[in-house]
Amino acid sequence: MNAPIGVSLIGCGAVGAQVARMLTEHADELRQTSGCRFELRNILVRDPSRSRDITLPSKLFTTHATKLLADAGTQIVIELAGGTDHAKTLILAALLAGKDVITANKALLALHGREVFAAARKAGRCVAFEASVCGGVPLIEAIRRGLIANRIDAVMGILNGTSNYILTRMLENNASYAHALAEAQAAGYAEADPTLDVSGGDAAHKLTILAGITMRAACDFNKINVEGIEKIELSDLTAGDQLGYRCKLLAIARRFDDGLDLSVQPTFIPTTHPLANVSGPFNAVSVYGHPIGHTFFYGRGAGGAATASAVVADLVDTAIGNARRTFERLVLLPDQTPAATYRPTGETACPHYIRVGLRDQPGGIGKLATVLGSHGISIATIVQHEPPQSVSSAAVPVIVTTHPTKERSVRAAVDDITRMDVTQSPPISIPVLDERES
Amino acid sequence: MNAPIGVSLIGCGAVGAQVARMLTEHADELRQTSGCRFELRNILVRDPSRSRDITLPSKLFTTHATKLLADAGTQIVIELAGGTDHAKTLILAALLAGKDVITANKALLALHGREVFAAARKAGRCVAFEASVCGGVPLIEAIRRGLIANRIDAVMGILNGTSNYILTRMLENNASYAHALAEAQAAGYAEADPTLDVSGGDAAHKLTILAGITMRAACDFNKINVEGIEKIELSDLTAGDQLGYRCKLLAIARRFDDGLDLSVQPTFIPTTHPLANVSGPFNAVSVYGHPIGHTFFYGRGAGGAATASAVVADLVDTAIGNARRTFERLVLLPDQTPAATYRPTGETACPHYIRVGLRDQPGGIGKLATVLGSHGISIATIVQHEPPQSVSSAAVPVIVTTHPTKERSVRAAVDDITRMDVTQSPPISIPVLDERES
Repeated sequence: MNAPIGVSLIGCGAVGAQVARMLTEHADELRQTSGCRFELRNILVRDPSRSRDITLPSKLFTTHATKLLADAGTQIVIELAGGTDHAKTLILAALLAGKDVITANKALLALHGREVFAAARKAGRCVAFEASVCGGVPLIEAIRRGLIANRIDAVMGILNGTSNYILTRMLENNASYAHALAEAQAAGYAEADPTLDVSGGDAAHKLTILAGITMRAACDFNKINVEGIEKIELSDLTAGDQLGYRCKLLAIARRFDDGLDLSVQPTFIPTTHPLANVSGPFNAVSVYGHPIGHTFFYGRGAGGAATASAVVADLVDTAIGNARRTFERLVLLPDQTPAATYRPTGETACPHYIRVGLRDQPGGIGKLATVLGSHGISIATIVQHEPPQSVSSAAVPVIVTTHPTKERSVRAAVDDITRMDVTQSPPISIPVLDERES
Repeated sequence: MNAPIGVSLIGCGAVGAQVARMLTEHADELRQTSGCRFELRNILVRDPSRSRDITLPSKLFTTHATKLLADAGTQIVIELAGGTDHAKTLILAALLAGKDVITANKALLALHGREVFAAARKAGRCVAFEASVCGGVPLIEAIRRGLIANRIDAVMGILNGTSNYILTRMLENNASYAHALAEAQAAGYAEADPTLDVSGGDAAHKLTILAGITMRAACDFNKINVEGIEKIELSDLTAGDQLGYRCKLLAIARRFDDGLDLSVQPTFIPTTHPLANVSGPFNAVSVYGHPIGHTFFYGRGAGGAATASAVVADLVDTAIGNARRTFERLVLLPDQTPAATYRPTGETACPHYIRVGLRDQPGGIGKLATVLGSHGISIATIVQHEPPQSVSSAAVPVIVTTHPTKERSVRAAVDDITRMDVTQSPPISIPVLDERES
């Protein structure tokens, strides 16, 4: 019980440096509360000479994976390098070498979770991954263990801080998407290439993991309907604001009689729902279960320190043996659960917001309403705004909200609207979260 | 691994019946996800013939504690009887008899937690208590395990659903306290004698537990400054609404250099804070830690089914051995941690709302302002309303908000204001949650 537990890191970026800090500078506090003494043994990096957020003895750093994998004193390997190929190779090797693994790598688990978990099971080791979804929020274990008595019907969350920061700042600051993106990049909330975040890909990785443990089925990343925030305009956010909605990049997994519906897309959320009030880089998740009802978790979804908090929680859980038992005994991971069945795309109904720019000529609204009607779409509200007077050729923005409509009808209608002769700028549709579901 | 785990219940009220239902009707699902097979063996009740939410074989029921305690097949005892004396006796006896214990009994743990935990440790058993705070929200384990790498500086929560339902309905329904209380009783959210809930006692029990595991110190229930919601008037709620605040019975534990400050009192929360939007019977807790920042948990804090969800989570955790390891290895419980030191009462400063009814005569405001000034209280806003015209003798309501002021200054000023000759109805003060703290 008093022998130190050897820990090695793969990667030493923002999260890795914070984990290293907790294991060195805060070792005493951690030992006091957890009863665990950790010894940081190796840090695998590409460039040991790079300057980092923490100063550590240079002998800890290595560029040789074999040094770390062959180290008999390392019991736990923490993978924070990211990426799916090299990270997978290293994790599988670490498991084979008899080490337990902790990872924050959502892309890896979303794409290769089944293989990684199966390899751990075969090697008699475990994989813990609290940090892979919602950074520091202790969500994965709260769901896996705390909600185990529940049948979960829906999980929905704001899983990507970058997108949420951009959408929040657009509305707060009356800014365009491009302007808010540049601000997010300057503030360190968005990468130079923001594609993975703003396209919904990162949120979809996290949803794959979250859907798996909530729906208790192996979910396929490629079955998620993913749409990013790139087409959202400030006018959509302000129109939504007037309707009592906030636009969020919402990841949803829902259980229906005919299968799961998994999607990541910009969604209008009524401001009365707690998810609507999640601002800036924060993350949050709503879980709807039986018998628990609605449960909601909120906190910092990214950042080195918050994510390190989740990694160290997993580290303690692994060190005292709990992570292993959870991994072995609970049947929730994709190598144990049946493959999910999926509801046919577009079958789920909810109210929709549709914005289209019509030419400033008679008959436009009539044609629009006719197209909607031909798809069986019932209009709840319709508003036509004056076009900007300074621009004679400007489109007339028309905003429609619908009664609950299947998404495939809306998509078909949007295609037809795009082709109308009175349409000047292509329509955009945004689903509205139906609170009756909650 | 395939032998069933024997479970016995003490008490079979709303929660107990739901736990029994999960262990019988939902046994297959539970076995599938948890790998655990449970066998319900004994249910200790006062009156076996009473009608319950579930029909169970009558041989399960017993009125004899010794039958349950002597049952070698019972490995886990779940205490849901409530109360502090008999429940303590039974729990200590169960631990001595070699059984692990799960309890939802916040009063017992708040008053005798140290003794109960020490007895479990001595007997080599464990006590799990997820259901004791915030019902079904998996908060206790999220904090104990998920936030273990954090130094927590503040925890604040809406821990009593009854009070929150009453305060919510008063404002929604333009109703008096008495009317909303009656409604809560009719809806099953308040007991015939609501004292423990509306006086803040129940929230203080829960805060004792929550403060212990967050501040990592043994907290004394009697050191909590407790004030109930009985004096809150509808006019306070509407005035707060205009100021951008919601009044909640807020339980707070904060760490200062000179000790902990623990309180349960009606508090105005800015509507921008997620706690302000927790309505009806829901519970929620905000945790402020380093490095995690603000984390927020929300869900159903009461009700048989939601609480049973937490009990069964503890049951699985106990059955697979995780609860034992958490109990043995983490140093967070009051039999292991040092006694808390407390900040002197009233030293914590925040803005305050003060409402007083003055006689309708000249000079009142001047005297009020003079008293506040004599206590060094700086006025932020002051509003005098017209008295109700129909009542000639009605007091003139005056509402003051202050800049951050130590609570003891406010209390001293309130005493002086009460004694002013121009004061017709006694003043009430409500602290305002200072968001700069967050």
